[in-house]
Amino acid sequence: MNNRIEALRSSFKDEFDGYLVRSPVNMFYFAGVSGGAMLTVTNDGMATLYVYGVNYEQIKADAKNCTVKRAKHWKDFTAKLQKQFKEQKLKNLAFDTMNFEENRKLQKVFNASLSLEPKSEYVWNLRRIKDDDELKKMRVAAELTVKGMEVAQEKMIAGLREFEVAAEIEYGMRVHGSQGVAFETIVASGPHSAYPHGGCGDRRMKTGDVVVVDIGATYQHYRSDMTRTFVIGNPSEKQERIYDIVKEAQQDAFMDMKNGANAKDIDARARETIKKAGYGESFVHGLGHGIGLEVHEQPLLNSRSKDTLKTRNVVTDEPGIYIVGFGGFRAEDTVLISQSKTERLTDGHYNLKL
Amino acid sequence: MNNRIEALRSSFKDEFDGYLVRSPVNMFYFAGVSGGAMLTVTNDGMATLYVYGVNYEQIKADAKNCTVKRAKHWKDFTAKLQKQFKEQKLKNLAFDTMNFEENRKLQKVFNASLSLEPKSEYVWNLRRIKDDDELKKMRVAAELTVKGMEVAQEKMIAGLREFEVAAEIEYGMRVHGSQGVAFETIVASGPHSAYPHGGCGDRRMKTGDVVVVDIGATYQHYRSDMTRTFVIGNPSEKQERIYDIVKEAQQDAFMDMKNGANAKDIDARARETIKKAGYGESFVHGLGHGIGLEVHEQPLLNSRSKDTLKTRNVVTDEPGIYIVGFGGFRAEDTVLISQSKTERLTDGHYNLKL
Repeated sequence: MNNRIEALRSSFKDEFDGYLVRSPVNMFYFAGVSGGAMLTVTNDGMATLYVYGVNYEQIKADAKNCTVKRAKHWKDFTAKLQKQFKEQKLKNLAFDTMNFEENRKLQKVFNASLSLEPKSEYVWNLRRIKDDDELKKMRVAAELTVKGMEVAQEKMIAGLREFEVAAEIEYGMRVHGSQGVAFETIVASGPHSAYPHGGCGDRRMKTGDVVVVDIGATYQHYRSDMTRTFVIGNPSEKQERIYDIVKEAQQDAFMDMKNGANAKDIDARARETIKKAGYGESFVHGLGHGIGLEVHEQPLLNSRSKDTLKTRNVVTDEPGIYIVGFGGFRAEDTVLISQSKTERLTDGHYNLKL
Repeated sequence: MNNRIEALRSSFKDEFDGYLVRSPVNMFYFAGVSGGAMLTVTNDGMATLYVYGVNYEQIKADAKNCTVKRAKHWKDFTAKLQKQFKEQKLKNLAFDTMNFEENRKLQKVFNASLSLEPKSEYVWNLRRIKDDDELKKMRVAAELTVKGMEVAQEKMIAGLREFEVAAEIEYGMRVHGSQGVAFETIVASGPHSAYPHGGCGDRRMKTGDVVVVDIGATYQHYRSDMTRTFVIGNPSEKQERIYDIVKEAQQDAFMDMKNGANAKDIDARARETIKKAGYGESFVHGLGHGIGLEVHEQPLLNSRSKDTLKTRNVVTDEPGIYIVGFGGFRAEDTVLISQSKTERLTDGHYNLKL
């Protein structure tokens, strides 16, 4: 993982004296541990992870690629930062993300002698290209998610409540090794299905209901994301037709997902398929998003995206048609981009009925 | 819920023209829905919730106490904000929380004609006092959490892996109506128990292990938090003794948790009990934190807190003793503060062994 810190240093060293990693997920990406307060990476290649007492012993034991320093509290932490910056003569720093108030407090501590510039793209440019170790974990997360979808399909039974189905799905993923859900499980039945974020409540599913199931497992911090739409009982012709359009749009987009493709063109391709079928206004969100340590990462696939897909990006492909008063239909897979053989990491379970 | 918006307006109206609610949880608190982009509350009492297309239909159907306006994208959103601010002659605004970069982008859109001041305390002052409806939900969340702890205690079996125990706990809470975990479940066995955030991995529990179980259910968006420590097999005398000290400290703090008490004094009380027993250095975190829609809220109970406890605060009481190489012990309850009869919402399961 030292490569990651070195790659970060290469990104900033011509413009900045150092980089402050403040996002917990980014700290995990570089140092392999959760619960740090801040990671500083400086132009000499030194990486220092500041940690409060509550997590000090654990991080001291597990952290990689960095020196670990204990901070007693905010004042002690900023005093230690000041000392470091003074010793290393750091004045011009970039950072990944910071709350407005925290930024102001830091500026105050440093009496405006410090320049702090947001540059999250330096880290995103690294994180969006998954290495072999990351892909291995993402494959396991995807397999666990597919297991969850198998359970979902078996539980499409009239009379069950949405949260009861979620309980079975989550158990199915968890007991096979999922670290927890990648995001809040969606089991949105009947009228709820018509909302892209239809949630998961205590509604009892009924025969004829459309049910959107959007789930993800996490494996060793890496996430997966998969959606299927089911119908309780026998699907109607219209339900079948609409889901077919969604699946066609999903496949059309998938075929175009290759190294070098413009994200917005792929979004447009799926949108065109749905528009031609007469449901253009009902596809009310972007086609997809990157995924990895977080569920929503770069690159973004939507009509305003400036991103280009690259080999080793992992993204979702998730068109949908949502009709209030009728139901919603979405099909989503987690997809690994490649030059030659772009691949669905999640797959199968495409039928409305078991 | 209109009372909440009116209370917010009363807080800011003498100093500001309006308030921007940017935290998703705060938006839920005021408007009863998730997925909004921003809620503006202005000195005339008007509340406007801006929403992107993906969540528009759902929020239009479910939002309370506000007008819902659709925004196509960031530019459209800020154009609509500009229009609103101009019409209502708003120049001097407060906000709850904002990312540094977003703040800068907003300032740029408004060409610095806008003053934006962070004032999260206006919302925290409301959120820390739970109303009857909130307490009803928090009681259910606590009951579900206790059910999870029952399952945990039954699964303290040598040979089971940490994540397998978590799977059973989470299923037990979920199937009874939990909306999902309030935070990542901790089942930290053996050496992991010595870290306050010891996680939950694939370690197999062994006879003699100390196991810290820290769990929480969520019910209708309200969270609970409870920790117990168990031993696989028969606890040793030293294990019993240390857990007794922790439980005594927890009870001492509980007895002092009353309307008007200083949070730091309560922290000191628990700390004193542990210090007297010779383990002062091993209690490496604050005593507790507020809890509600989020797992970590105000007020804070630690040695540097300036908070005073008030009736209808809900806080955790969670002292611990952590000894690397031996094990960690924590006992935690979610506690409702009152003048006369402060109450544990979670309770029971205090024995190291079933």
